[in-house]
Amino acid sequence: MINGTLGIDHPIRWGMVGGGKDSFIGYIHRSAALRDRSFAILAGAFARDSTRCRDFGVSIGVDASRCYGDYKTLFSEESKRKDGIEAVTIATPNNTHYEISKAALEAGLHVICEKPLCFKTEEAEELAALAEKKGLIYGVTYGYSGYQMIHQASAMVARGDLGKIRLVNMQFAYGSFNTNAVEEANAYARWRLDPTIAGPSFVIGDIGTHCLFLSETIAPELKLEKLLCTSQTFVKTRQLEDNAYVLLQYKGGAAGMLWVSSVNCGCTHGQKIRVIGEKASIEWWDEHPNQLRYEIEGEPVRILDRGAGYLYSEALAEDRIVGGHPEGLFESWSNLYRRYAIAIDAAARKDTAFLKSHWYPDVKAGVRGVRFVNACVQSAEAGSAWVQY
Amino acid sequence: MINGTLGIDHPIRWGMVGGGKDSFIGYIHRSAALRDRSFAILAGAFARDSTRCRDFGVSIGVDASRCYGDYKTLFSEESKRKDGIEAVTIATPNNTHYEISKAALEAGLHVICEKPLCFKTEEAEELAALAEKKGLIYGVTYGYSGYQMIHQASAMVARGDLGKIRLVNMQFAYGSFNTNAVEEANAYARWRLDPTIAGPSFVIGDIGTHCLFLSETIAPELKLEKLLCTSQTFVKTRQLEDNAYVLLQYKGGAAGMLWVSSVNCGCTHGQKIRVIGEKASIEWWDEHPNQLRYEIEGEPVRILDRGAGYLYSEALAEDRIVGGHPEGLFESWSNLYRRYAIAIDAAARKDTAFLKSHWYPDVKAGVRGVRFVNACVQSAEAGSAWVQY
Amino acid sequence: MINGTLGIDHPIRWGMVGGGKDSFIGYIHRSAALRDRSFAILAGAFARDSTRCRDFGVSIGVDASRCYGDYKTLFSEESKRKDGIEAVTIATPNNTHYEISKAALEAGLHVICEKPLCFKTEEAEELAALAEKKGLIYGVTYGYSGYQMIHQASAMVARGDLGKIRLVNMQFAYGSFNTNAVEEANAYARWRLDPTIAGPSFVIGDIGTHCLFLSETIAPELKLEKLLCTSQTFVKTRQLEDNAYVLLQYKGGAAGMLWVSSVNCGCTHGQKIRVIGEKASIEWWDEHPNQLRYEIEGEPVRILDRGAGYLYSEALAEDRIVGGHPEGLFESWSNLYRRYAIAIDAAARKDTAFLKSHWYPDVKAGVRGVRFVNACVQSAEAGSAWVQY
Amino acid sequence: MINGTLGIDHPIRWGMVGGGKDSFIGYIHRSAALRDRSFAILAGAFARDSTRCRDFGVSIGVDASRCYGDYKTLFSEESKRKDGIEAVTIATPNNTHYEISKAALEAGLHVICEKPLCFKTEEAEELAALAEKKGLIYGVTYGYSGYQMIHQASAMVARGDLGKIRLVNMQFAYGSFNTNAVEEANAYARWRLDPTIAGPSFVIGDIGTHCLFLSETIAPELKLEKLLCTSQTFVKTRQLEDNAYVLLQYKGGAAGMLWVSSVNCGCTHGQKIRVIGEKASIEWWDEHPNQLRYEIEGEPVRILDRGAGYLYSEALAEDRIVGGHPEGLFESWSNLYRRYAIAIDAAARKDTAFLKSHWYPDVKAGVRGVRFVNACVQSAEAGSAWVQY
Repeated sequence: MINGTLGIDHPIRWGMVGGGKDSFIGYIHRSAALRDRSFAILAGAFARDSTRCRDFGVSIGVDASRCYGDYKTLFSEESKRKDGIEAVTIATPNNTHYEISKAALEAGLHVICEKPLCFKTEEAEELAALAEKKGLIYGVTYGYSGYQMIHQASAMVARGDLGKIRLVNMQFAYGSFNTNAVEEANAYARWRLDPTIAGPSFVIGDIGTHCLFLSETIAPELKLEKLLCTSQTFVKTRQLEDNAYVLLQYKGGAAGMLWVSSVNCGCTHGQKIRVIGEKASIEWWDEHPNQLRYEIEGEPVRILDRGAGYLYSEALAEDRIVGGHPEGLFESWSNLYRRYAIAIDAAARKDTAFLKSHWYPDVKAGVRGVRFVNACVQSAEAGSAWVQY
Repeated sequence: MINGTLGIDHPIRWGMVGGGKDSFIGYIHRSAALRDRSFAILAGAFARDSTRCRDFGVSIGVDASRCYGDYKTLFSEESKRKDGIEAVTIATPNNTHYEISKAALEAGLHVICEKPLCFKTEEAEELAALAEKKGLIYGVTYGYSGYQMIHQASAMVARGDLGKIRLVNMQFAYGSFNTNAVEEANAYARWRLDPTIAGPSFVIGDIGTHCLFLSETIAPELKLEKLLCTSQTFVKTRQLEDNAYVLLQYKGGAAGMLWVSSVNCGCTHGQKIRVIGEKASIEWWDEHPNQLRYEIEGEPVRILDRGAGYLYSEALAEDRIVGGHPEGLFESWSNLYRRYAIAIDAAARKDTAFLKSHWYPDVKAGVRGVRFVNACVQSAEAGSAWVQY
Repeated sequence: MINGTLGIDHPIRWGMVGGGKDSFIGYIHRSAALRDRSFAILAGAFARDSTRCRDFGVSIGVDASRCYGDYKTLFSEESKRKDGIEAVTIATPNNTHYEISKAALEAGLHVICEKPLCFKTEEAEELAALAEKKGLIYGVTYGYSGYQMIHQASAMVARGDLGKIRLVNMQFAYGSFNTNAVEEANAYARWRLDPTIAGPSFVIGDIGTHCLFLSETIAPELKLEKLLCTSQTFVKTRQLEDNAYVLLQYKGGAAGMLWVSSVNCGCTHGQKIRVIGEKASIEWWDEHPNQLRYEIEGEPVRILDRGAGYLYSEALAEDRIVGGHPEGLFESWSNLYRRYAIAIDAAARKDTAFLKSHWYPDVKAGVRGVRFVNACVQSAEAGSAWVQY
Repeated sequence: MINGTLGIDHPIRWGMVGGGKDSFIGYIHRSAALRDRSFAILAGAFARDSTRCRDFGVSIGVDASRCYGDYKTLFSEESKRKDGIEAVTIATPNNTHYEISKAALEAGLHVICEKPLCFKTEEAEELAALAEKKGLIYGVTYGYSGYQMIHQASAMVARGDLGKIRLVNMQFAYGSFNTNAVEEANAYARWRLDPTIAGPSFVIGDIGTHCLFLSETIAPELKLEKLLCTSQTFVKTRQLEDNAYVLLQYKGGAAGMLWVSSVNCGCTHGQKIRVIGEKASIEWWDEHPNQLRYEIEGEPVRILDRGAGYLYSEALAEDRIVGGHPEGLFESWSNLYRRYAIAIDAAARKDTAFLKSHWYPDVKAGVRGVRFVNACVQSAEAGSAWVQY
């Protein structure tokens, strides 16, 4: 049970690039990072306009002098301070992640970055190599992977409760982009559909990689061998796909399927994952994240509940309230930021042994996401050919 | 509201081939046919062994003299009687459907046959042509298509409640064949996995075509253009696939997906269909067949309930009890047999005008099913190539 | 698994009083009775008007000469025939049940009667005594009690799976009588709200006794000691209550609660029962009758499914299709009529030993229902005083 | 949408009495208060042992010099400081609430207190009068009442969407106290069952008042007239009730029912409220707090979802993330603490006009809760007599 203390040397000195006033994702990052004093927000380049940046920074308690108009100044000025930031979160549009990440790492900062890391797999690998070389933590915010029931699922797979995995079915399919009204009204939506800013994909990159990472977290032994994709653009004004189906072939014979959509009318979120083994299946749905269905063939369906004593220890370690009381997405993110903080603290102590066994969504997961998007796009462009992953 | 009378000249004089003592499907056929005096069971070749055939026939009220040891005798002897049967149901293993159907039609009998009609598309078309030439009714027991909420769905699509259809997602995926214990223990299961009896496919043919027909019933304007299939055989002793994913491309741009599986551990049935339009989606799940989810984008999800006054008339015409009280699979089948009886009565009167607007799962639906299975098998064998449908 | 044969000497020769053309309950009786040749409908007084009676009778296959204008003629004429009916179902308004039941028993007929048997407990006891004296079967159509999952529940309680029972919570609360439009439009509804026809209660008698009987079926060892009732009449034109809460005190310390309502807006049916023991609870909801929740304290909630191999034999004996496929209310009624037929067959053979262990909703259950209604009315009239049961 | 800023003059200077290391409720208070800089934790008497108090305080960032061994010292020392605390949260066992609250108010501190305020209604009224006289805010942590969907429910009732309210059914019934193992193992549980510490009731006071306050929040126009209670103590070692049923009679004819239980085996939480009007019902369940069922009679059931554009503005004002993403109990509490902070800020400015229309769970709600508990106990002791409220 988490009760407000973290066991690290001090709250990580932290800044943000992006994530300002109108950014709802920026708020989630801060809510998670500031929880339980994991991080302290001390600086930022929250917006391109210096006045807006400063006004916003001050409103959340950052000293005006440490609100910078651009990330380069943020990194250079903070690096001159004794009490300068140690870590930075990058919550800007996709096309800037690569250059800002690179600059941050080169400035010696630990990085927490929104996915995708970048557009090209080679660039992603470059970032991963740079982080490793520098001994810096690079976390990627696959924000759903912090839920305790995901870690229950992972613990069940690891212990063989499902038997050998045969199938992985995933979906992330909501409806609110079913017309172009959303991108006409909303800058936030608009850039996601602009390939120069969002990259070569909309739904596969924006939401599909969340599913991919959940599957990797739950069943890390499963290795994707090849995939096949068909994608559609139903809203004709768009340049990128708003729906896609991906067939998955894993090494060793397991198979799977991913459906991603922003035109799934009437569904508010629709992220689900079902992992099917020789003995049992588990299914998780992110709109009710405190539950996990556990279906052993020949036995009654069981509904596992967060916080219950029958769960594995991996699923109980990060509870903040007793079961029955619902936790939500903010807790999932808090769990991740808590793990980033612990990782950064360990990195500062050069505790590589600890870091080897300390799970968090890391830069390698980010690299795999970029590779996945590119493979899907390649398959779809080739008329749904199988593409090696 | 159905209240026990049918408005036809007389209960259709009826016999069965197969469907004897240990056949649970035979019981469903009879439960449906005999309901409300649509049909009267007068003769049969219920089993290959004459004694077992006669014992069983007598136990259900058939005169011993009209229990025949084989279908040929059944057809020839009954055709000599003034009060001979008018219609026959064929509930035998797949590999016999073609020859028995052909013989029945040639004997002037209306036919109700289990799917698949046969293994080859040309043979299916031959049966369709023969029925048409003879002016005989040929019904196929897509047994889930009689549910009232399926007809509510169809009425909604026809009225444009969903807008233009974009996506059709289907699944029929249960878990009880997750090991080969079932076919080792059970003759009923065994022949389904034997390609010489079951045909070129297990799950696609046995359950996938049910989904296909539901989609055709709900959205008849959608025309399948091409499909792509990947299939797996997880239980290694099997010759046929026990899992498959099928991607669908419809004329006009709609797309879809079908997942069929007999190794979906822990799921007892798992037949679902979700139809997504530009404005709204509908979703139906056959384990709770009295409900239909209706999800208009930007509005609260609605749960439509069988029997409710707000449903379209097409969905209310076949209610047997007021809403809230659950109807089940027997009522769905009863609705189909009721429609077969009405069709046979109309055919006897040569009322072709009536028959044109009278819906029932007909031989053309059977032909499409056979074509679908063959296209899936062809695609899977070609390494998941797109196959024109 | 039920497969169409019953093992009785012959289908019970059967007639009906009431249950004619516009009676949906009449249709349910016939659907259940005629299923699997348990009963054969040979005579009836289906309506007070002789022409309507005869027309209806003929339409369902009854010989015109055996359609009678009133129940007295039905009983007297049929008793003169060698092939006269052996049993009669009474599906008329409440205020006639007593006299028709009495006449039927006196004519030597087995009786199946809609609840309530009558208005006064002494009259109910008189009918019970008469049936016993005559050696006749008297069944009461508590139509929900035939569901297999109710018998699973009963088997679980009997085996101690729940531990000692502490609490029984019940509700039957629908919304469709939330204004008086329903009784203004509908004769069927009107008499239910007329105390001269319906008796001293509307919802307690009409639906509350169903819950009572389910609780008695599931936990027969629990003996009601006293009850306390508060009732309301929200629709002001009504003379009888349309909502009531009943508190229950059982011998030995268990407690319970029943909520019955016809003004529970938006709920289509709403019949639920939850039985809570020292170790576990079970909960059943009649809109999804194929499931039963089983909640062991400290373990995950389990969803039991009709037809599954892990159920007790009592729950599997009356399956008509394999699990996953939904059965509905018609099957529950068919199970009851099947049991009535078997009971009547045994009574004809004077097999009292068999009858002792053969469960069906019998006249004693009918008596208890009448007593319950009267106790509730008495408590409510006394300002919610506890009333001994 | 809440995005991290609050519009108040400064974060409220805040301290705590109780809520130390092993207190999970203390953590919830802090998580909520510190969110978005509504409050700043500056002092506390977190534990009776000074060392434990100081160690804990320091671990959450409180200066060691402001960690006090008892609440009296806390109040007196802080009142001497210019930067002393303005508000205090009381998270101690029930029997201490009255004296600590009184002392805090007398020290000029705004108070946020766990329910119940005290054991006797007169004492509760005394606290309310004292707070009013001093112009101090006194908030009570009915922690479920901050959920947005509760405020959607309230807005629907206020706008007449349900029509006149007829029935209010409530339950809060979990199973984890089904044996005395919990109080044997756990000090936290033990005092709840000790009448000298917990007061005259266990489940009615501990959880029943939460339901009461939800009903008051949703339907403030409904005024409770009288109530009737029966309670049970199933675990024999206990002095207080572990189960109770309460019947409710409102002025104007509405009725209701509350079931509270700690022996509802297998249920992890089980807090539900259903409000039934002449036209429609709403139902909310706290394990899925982002949904609200809306059931208009004669229309399909609708599932309303937090964050959706169709909700009333009252339900959208406190969203922290867009719909589909689940919020949880921490957000509900954060909403309440946010409102307490705004109230305290307004009180400091003596903005009584604003305070009149500013909703938060206030001392009057606390008084009603104490009165309710006492009325229930009185009724139960009088053999379930109706007691005026």
